Amino acid sequence: MNLWENNVRRVVPYTPGEQPKCSYIIKLNTNENPFPPSPKAAQIVKEFDSDKLRLYPDTDSTVLVDALAERYGVDSDRIFVGVGSDDVLSMAFLTFFNSDKPVIFPDITYSFYDVWCDVYRIKYETKALKDDFTIDANDYFCENGGIVIPNPNAPTGVLQSVDMFESILKANTNSVVIVDEAYIDFGGESCVKLIDKYENLLVVQTFSKSRSMAGARIGYAFGSKKLIKYLNDVKFSINSYTMNWVTQLAGAESVKDEEYFQKTKNEIVRVREYSKEKLAELGFEFPDSMSNFIFATHKTVPAKTIFEKLKEKSIFVRYWNKDRINNHLRITIGTQEQMDKLFEALCEILSENERS
Amino acid sequence: MNLWENNVRRVVPYTPGEQPKCSYIIKLNTNENPFPPSPKAAQIVKEFDSDKLRLYPDTDSTVLVDALAERYGVDSDRIFVGVGSDDVLSMAFLTFFNSDKPVIFPDITYSFYDVWCDVYRIKYETKALKDDFTIDANDYFCENGGIVIPNPNAPTGVLQSVDMFESILKANTNSVVIVDEAYIDFGGESCVKLIDKYENLLVVQTFSKSRSMAGARIGYAFGSKKLIKYLNDVKFSINSYTMNWVTQLAGAESVKDEEYFQKTKNEIVRVREYSKEKLAELGFEFPDSMSNFIFATHKTVPAKTIFEKLKEKSIFVRYWNKDRINNHLRITIGTQEQMDKLFEALCEILSENERS
Repeated sequence: MNLWENNVRRVVPYTPGEQPKCSYIIKLNTNENPFPPSPKAAQIVKEFDSDKLRLYPDTDSTVLVDALAERYGVDSDRIFVGVGSDDVLSMAFLTFFNSDKPVIFPDITYSFYDVWCDVYRIKYETKALKDDFTIDANDYFCENGGIVIPNPNAPTGVLQSVDMFESILKANTNSVVIVDEAYIDFGGESCVKLIDKYENLLVVQTFSKSRSMAGARIGYAFGSKKLIKYLNDVKFSINSYTMNWVTQLAGAESVKDEEYFQKTKNEIVRVREYSKEKLAELGFEFPDSMSNFIFATHKTVPAKTIFEKLKEKSIFVRYWNKDRINNHLRITIGTQEQMDKLFEALCEILSENERS
Repeated sequence: MNLWENNVRRVVPYTPGEQPKCSYIIKLNTNENPFPPSPKAAQIVKEFDSDKLRLYPDTDSTVLVDALAERYGVDSDRIFVGVGSDDVLSMAFLTFFNSDKPVIFPDITYSFYDVWCDVYRIKYETKALKDDFTIDANDYFCENGGIVIPNPNAPTGVLQSVDMFESILKANTNSVVIVDEAYIDFGGESCVKLIDKYENLLVVQTFSKSRSMAGARIGYAFGSKKLIKYLNDVKFSINSYTMNWVTQLAGAESVKDEEYFQKTKNEIVRVREYSKEKLAELGFEFPDSMSNFIFATHKTVPAKTIFEKLKEKSIFVRYWNKDRINNHLRITIGTQEQMDKLFEALCEILSENERS
């Protein structure tokens, strides 16, 4: 090893879900939306004046922030936007988690949290979910350097009440509390209603799931003016121009198209409820999901076997070989047609397994 | 102040050049390119299948990296891409500058370097440029935690030789050396030819200047396989999907359109040389610029006065109220027509000043 390598920040990066490049597969592994983005967003991309690309984009993403302000009834100076909610969350970790005390989050949760702690050298501790994958709020009534909890949780899909989060906020005025609401639009109640009351609450959402815009990269956060100002100071200390022009404009159009948003979101919720029935019939068990995925385990056939056999049939779901969840599959809700193909494949796989 | 604020990372963010929203101004303040991006890049945006936005983008930006590999004759695994060169540079600071010894860079230089050091809590020391704004290589033959130098330097426009950088590299095998070549295409020789020889050399370039794509956000870096792997590990520990689909595709097309690149770049160089003559005639002095801007001071009229009077005439140039450079203006090279309007305005301002 050369001496310059002594000063390198060594990390074990996050592993994203596989992104196969062929198009004939059924891709239910990264919680993408099966529907295209709003036709209004599509239209703005098509009409985009590419001469504009020669100029730096608006550092404040004003058009997008203002559209979000209008839609959510939150002042523009209480909204932060970033390149996906991963950008928003990692920036929030860097900005707010600088205590000697550990940041706390559930043991089964979004697997980027410990990676961000590692890369930014933040101490952390995990709190075990109960056996039914719900959170025990009492675990969060302790001294800490910050709290981050997804709601609904990933990969479990379990939704917790705004009241539970309020109880955690009441007990934690000395650290920043982040509620990661990537999946909130699929049937949950947002904690955004609490931002007036708790200056240290940051609520993070994304365009990657309910708005079908994972490929455009937009995440955003609501919080007190103070919290958002601190976040922006750090953002503007790293990269002034993160969100490109096309994304800013397409994002704003998507937010304005409420009708399309409701229609596609409701269809996913409908297919999710249908999928719950089907999975139960096939012998799967799962916590009740309020997200766009279901976290399921089969009564007799190991998750790893099902995962591999589905892949052979060109159906991708997500599997983690991790303690406590290594017999579960996370299945993204696709279209009705995609889900029916999945159930057909599952039928075959399960019956083969019974024969063997 | 509330207790949670004790754990906030406090920073003084970088101030980007003003981005006025009206369109009738002549904008020569942020070194953007006056020409639109390649028509091939424009075409790919127009034809973009927006259904694709529902899917996460390729984490590896393969299409873009491969186009760069082909154009520059560098293997794909020796290329890192990011959301503008600010993203690439800040990521490199975070990845490589983790020593107890200070990182060193010129005292007059890109004003983001000290901001990145501050946000990531990196020790640094600046080395004074000589009076003619050139670098004394001897200043960099000392123990350090890393080196970063722009070539050509900003805001001076001064180009240094590849030989000078090689002398610095020979003396520095124990830390990473970054050459920031944002403006190299306007007449400089790149240090990319040295990456085979020096494993600790990172050469950073951008699409924001010579490729007219500031609004798309693309920066990239060349280095050894090892260096690029370390950078990617940190990148994938922060945000797996930073570059959106549209940008990846448009960027690749731009790289493939060599003819347009050469044509527009040569025109900027031509207008720059013409502008040098004009500015000299008007009584300005400036180091010989090899970039797309000129860093000029007037023999009698203060820079601040000229800056303000130009702004009144809707012509924006860049001025810093900073030690050693507070009597200089950085003037971006626009089109011939824009520059002629600038010279006309300067004529008026200077003659008014002589009268008063």
